[in-house]
Amino acid sequence: MQTIFTETHKDAHSNARLGILSLPHGDVQTPAFMPVGTNGTVKGIYHDKIEEIGYNLILGNTYHLYLRPGLEVLEKFGGLHNFSHWNHNLLTDSGGFQVFSLSGLRKISEKGVAFQSHIDGSRHIFTPEKVVDIQKVIGSDIAMCLDVCTPPNIEYRAAKEAMHITHNWAERALNHRKELGDAFKGNLFGIVQGNFYKDLRKESAEVLSAMDFPGIAIGGLSVGETTDQFNEFLAYTADIVTKEKPRYVMGIGSPDYILEAVENGIDMFDCVLATRMARNGAVFTDDGIVTLKKAMHKFDQGPIESECHCTACTEYSRAYMHHMVKTNEMLGGMLATEHNLTYFYRLMEKIRLAIAEDRFSSFKKDYLARFYKR
Amino acid sequence: MQTIFTETHKDAHSNARLGILSLPHGDVQTPAFMPVGTNGTVKGIYHDKIEEIGYNLILGNTYHLYLRPGLEVLEKFGGLHNFSHWNHNLLTDSGGFQVFSLSGLRKISEKGVAFQSHIDGSRHIFTPEKVVDIQKVIGSDIAMCLDVCTPPNIEYRAAKEAMHITHNWAERALNHRKELGDAFKGNLFGIVQGNFYKDLRKESAEVLSAMDFPGIAIGGLSVGETTDQFNEFLAYTADIVTKEKPRYVMGIGSPDYILEAVENGIDMFDCVLATRMARNGAVFTDDGIVTLKKAMHKFDQGPIESECHCTACTEYSRAYMHHMVKTNEMLGGMLATEHNLTYFYRLMEKIRLAIAEDRFSSFKKDYLARFYKR
Repeated sequence: MQTIFTETHKDAHSNARLGILSLPHGDVQTPAFMPVGTNGTVKGIYHDKIEEIGYNLILGNTYHLYLRPGLEVLEKFGGLHNFSHWNHNLLTDSGGFQVFSLSGLRKISEKGVAFQSHIDGSRHIFTPEKVVDIQKVIGSDIAMCLDVCTPPNIEYRAAKEAMHITHNWAERALNHRKELGDAFKGNLFGIVQGNFYKDLRKESAEVLSAMDFPGIAIGGLSVGETTDQFNEFLAYTADIVTKEKPRYVMGIGSPDYILEAVENGIDMFDCVLATRMARNGAVFTDDGIVTLKKAMHKFDQGPIESECHCTACTEYSRAYMHHMVKTNEMLGGMLATEHNLTYFYRLMEKIRLAIAEDRFSSFKKDYLARFYKR
Repeated sequence: MQTIFTETHKDAHSNARLGILSLPHGDVQTPAFMPVGTNGTVKGIYHDKIEEIGYNLILGNTYHLYLRPGLEVLEKFGGLHNFSHWNHNLLTDSGGFQVFSLSGLRKISEKGVAFQSHIDGSRHIFTPEKVVDIQKVIGSDIAMCLDVCTPPNIEYRAAKEAMHITHNWAERALNHRKELGDAFKGNLFGIVQGNFYKDLRKESAEVLSAMDFPGIAIGGLSVGETTDQFNEFLAYTADIVTKEKPRYVMGIGSPDYILEAVENGIDMFDCVLATRMARNGAVFTDDGIVTLKKAMHKFDQGPIESECHCTACTEYSRAYMHHMVKTNEMLGGMLATEHNLTYFYRLMEKIRLAIAEDRFSSFKKDYLARFYKR
């Protein structure tokens, strides 16, 4: 297996680290935040603007893309890069998380998972092998193994069974990936599970670390547990997962969770939070989240953030943004999306600089104190 | 009164003409189509992109802007140009059309019109003078007189009364405009009414033409009448309205209506059609309107139009656009809006070229034959 990750610097006082992730569509500086483009578009923003902000790795959702536009379309276009006019890196999830969210509509067996489309009720089966094949058609630069993601507070027995299926599927996916050889350029990542049981987390982290994956994700976090549980299980698991490979925590995107992850040596994360909140008129600033709908912004001539270089902050006032949100205008969501993605990109730049200068822990403390007024 | 319009060429075989409209924020080539930005944003597109396409005159709606963000906000920002980051020309309607659409919620008297906000039910009064004042606060480059707009098929008596009120209000608005002097740079246009009665149309066209307005609009068209009625009353009225001034037909935006208007020597028009249809996934091409949702586009690798230089046509396929519409993604409406506004801008360029080359009538015939497959 080829190494795709180089650690370039480790923070002197924490596990935070800088690295370079070498992918088919170019190198990515880590720690990296990835915007989510579920259907082959990050909602409310042009792909050109995402590139302009500086992102060169975004996420797509296998489950959604498999259903629409579907594999026949993606095959005809030679993959999602070409179809969606995105010439940088793409990571796709396995579809597992979405399928398991369908609760009533899916059934897991050792073989795979049978489910019904949320769109038209049509019946489908995902197997570990098929999910790799789908991501090959998509042309993912990073593909994820099908896993069984479980909610917090399930019984030990069920958590253990889900973990065993996940490990079995990881092996099958990896074998299938190897059979495909160079016909697929994507890097397949394994996913650690184990719910909120330390012995299971330990076992899963060790099993996955020992397998021949170019990268590892810590799954099953940020699924409804408390922040204390998240912090505890993130630190516990991250400590065991191999540090030789890029480490990814799925589905996190609030500044406190990102900082916690970085402190534990996590290199990648994704979340819809930044873009979803933008569409609801909530924008990020170093002083916390600003709810644009509030009447206090009606006459405010200042920008969302004076040091931000996004379109909203360089061309518009908070009063205009307030007006856009109150009148439910598309431009409100468009401008807020661009702002939030710019904010997260700049936050990652600041985080990387702090690591480079061996002051990540103090950066984290100061940032959280200001952002959350703690 | 200062002349703001110069006719630079008249088509040899029709009343179509080229001209230059000199406004406070720069010269506008006519005939000109104006995109509509009701709330101080053209829905689904950045003002920067509208400028890039080539537009330098867009429309805002006085009624909407008066209610939200309201005059206090606009006053604080020194007008809508600054508030909405639009440095070119703005035309605002009088609010009359919107108020009269509120049917149950408004009451007309000689003094003005009392109405209730569609947002919160609050009570307001528009008088001819007040509507000029509102447009002064907005900072409109072209302001419109408050008029009484009537639906087709009303009785002669009611049409005549509405016209007389319109004339009376036009005079009051003009007097008020004169009192304001240079404190307001905007050009106030009068509006011809008269419903679908030729003697009233004639009277109104003559009365308005004789008044000291820098421009004249033909109102009360495209309000629900048949196309034959529209064509007949447009030609009849346009023939009487002075040709010394810029001539504007309000609320038209389908290619056939635009071509009909140009042929009758109309210089300006506006419509929400291009942008509203875009948000519903309908895009304009020289071969007619394309409904992107249709299954026929699912695998189509071609662009909406190969000769168009908008983002949708240079970066995306019809298949991708189909996917955006099917998944209800914002980017679908954003890209389609940019395409349709680019299409209408290019159509106006072609129209102006055809007039310059004295072949407008044959251009119109060929265009309609292809677009409507007539």
